[in-house]
Amino acid sequence: MEIVLGIDIGGTTTTLGFTDKEGNMLAETVIPTQAGQHITMYLPRLFSAIDALLAPLKDTHTWVGIGIGAPNGNYFKGTVENPPNLQWGGVIPLCNLFEEKYNLPAFLTNDANAAAIGEMKFGVAKGMKDFILLTLGTGLGSGIVVNGELVYGHTGFAGELGHSTVNYDGRLCGCGKRGCLETYVSVTGIRRTVSKLLADTLVHSELRAVSQQDLTGEMITNAARQGDKIALEAFEYTGQIFGRKLTEFTVFTSPEAFILFGGLARAENLLLQPTLKHMEANMFGAFHGTVKLMYSSLQDTNAAVLGASALAWHELEKQKRKM
Amino acid sequence: MEIVLGIDIGGTTTTLGFTDKEGNMLAETVIPTQAGQHITMYLPRLFSAIDALLAPLKDTHTWVGIGIGAPNGNYFKGTVENPPNLQWGGVIPLCNLFEEKYNLPAFLTNDANAAAIGEMKFGVAKGMKDFILLTLGTGLGSGIVVNGELVYGHTGFAGELGHSTVNYDGRLCGCGKRGCLETYVSVTGIRRTVSKLLADTLVHSELRAVSQQDLTGEMITNAARQGDKIALEAFEYTGQIFGRKLTEFTVFTSPEAFILFGGLARAENLLLQPTLKHMEANMFGAFHGTVKLMYSSLQDTNAAVLGASALAWHELEKQKRKM
Repeated sequence: MEIVLGIDIGGTTTTLGFTDKEGNMLAETVIPTQAGQHITMYLPRLFSAIDALLAPLKDTHTWVGIGIGAPNGNYFKGTVENPPNLQWGGVIPLCNLFEEKYNLPAFLTNDANAAAIGEMKFGVAKGMKDFILLTLGTGLGSGIVVNGELVYGHTGFAGELGHSTVNYDGRLCGCGKRGCLETYVSVTGIRRTVSKLLADTLVHSELRAVSQQDLTGEMITNAARQGDKIALEAFEYTGQIFGRKLTEFTVFTSPEAFILFGGLARAENLLLQPTLKHMEANMFGAFHGTVKLMYSSLQDTNAAVLGASALAWHELEKQKRKM
Repeated sequence: MEIVLGIDIGGTTTTLGFTDKEGNMLAETVIPTQAGQHITMYLPRLFSAIDALLAPLKDTHTWVGIGIGAPNGNYFKGTVENPPNLQWGGVIPLCNLFEEKYNLPAFLTNDANAAAIGEMKFGVAKGMKDFILLTLGTGLGSGIVVNGELVYGHTGFAGELGHSTVNYDGRLCGCGKRGCLETYVSVTGIRRTVSKLLADTLVHSELRAVSQQDLTGEMITNAARQGDKIALEAFEYTGQIFGRKLTEFTVFTSPEAFILFGGLARAENLLLQPTLKHMEANMFGAFHGTVKLMYSSLQDTNAAVLGASALAWHELEKQKRKM
């Protein structure tokens, strides 16, 4: 049976696993990324982990390719380019390094794009040709699928919807601009919204006892579930900004669904209901009722590795079709 | 030599022409659309015009297909669906009607999409795989090309960028929403901006002598070229809103270029300079300097018919590749 290796490189851990064509995970492991290490120290550790994981599968399976999800991953070049949270040193030709080591085709993209391909091959987007995956974590990442293919654009970096602007005089973003969507709609964003509401109102809230630094998405979600007015208002505010922005994404590529993934998506209906309400209220006529709002079905466990594997399967199939 | 028929259906006139694969127009004619006529009255007139145009080409050329650009054109179904400015009666299966009459493959899309394909095959977008065409006329239309293909989306109506929102409390749009981009960036939009500036300021301007209804894009352009402060300020304001919005379109599909077409695009540098300035000033880091702002090279004469012809050539090539 044919298998591929999926690798998800995060700032803290690197997760890797071998999957078959149906997305079954046959073997999986995790190693610390050690973000401060140079790439020349990191790679030998990763290769050892791969060899150990492969050993028991070697005789019964055929390893056919490698998929990698990595921050600042450039799909066109197969490189990882100066990721802010990894001290690897400059532009790393990661695909070439893997291809040389294992003599197998390797493919690379960023984490949100890998997640989108994962949903399309193994998750709720199965059978969809036009959808947008949005990861709501520390920031807001996105993978845009049009006509069954990821949108990479002229530069390879298309799909930076977290830096779409909500308000040109709005909150300062880590990117240096003001009012980016991710300063409102993300775990960090809703935390800032709680701070704003604590400043603007006198409403009683248990969140007044927590510092902004200590505040987590789970704490806000739990408080809202217990009826805390500030927490509920924070979700309403987030849903308004998010729902309105989704109407703008809709007039662009007319997706069948928006699929939500990541920390803030775990709040489920607390986020979904106000988002849906404001989306439909502001939707351009032709698109009323045409877009679904869904949660990722790969949300837990090994979604990122599945996404990286799905990338490998997807690209291998494309190569076959071309032959 | 093979030729296709391109048809551009407008509210006032219908233009049609036969072109070869290089976009040379071999014969062209115009008939009045007579928007108040039912489709059963319009079609026989159109067919007669086609037959007359074809007669002298018939013996020396092979007619291989038909491309149609029409308002509210549904590419997937080949239908024209309740266009607001034509009294044709409901949903018209225009492609089927042409295929039955002439026994040739027929393809249909809306005018902005046809213009985008025209630029890709015969204009400034030759060789580009990712770009966005924006028509700045009475409204703002758009055709989005990703990886060499038009984006139709799940519904077939993708690319309604004129109804992307600038300000949720902004100007009322014909679509019923507030603050749509086309209420600012279009001939109608800049006219409204002039009215606003006449209201807000006391600056001397020759435009104070003209009613909003009588005001044309050319008048504003000419006034600006002669140094009229209100007209110049109107272009600056339009360029600010437009340039900022283009940064949002950029984070979406990362195009190689925005190509401007239509009445307001004729103002050239009056519009381009402020737009470019505000676009670069607000651009997300990764995309600085990656996007060109250009004018259509098919702007004059038969651009719409060329676009419709280009659609036919494009689709015929796609069918050939699949065989």
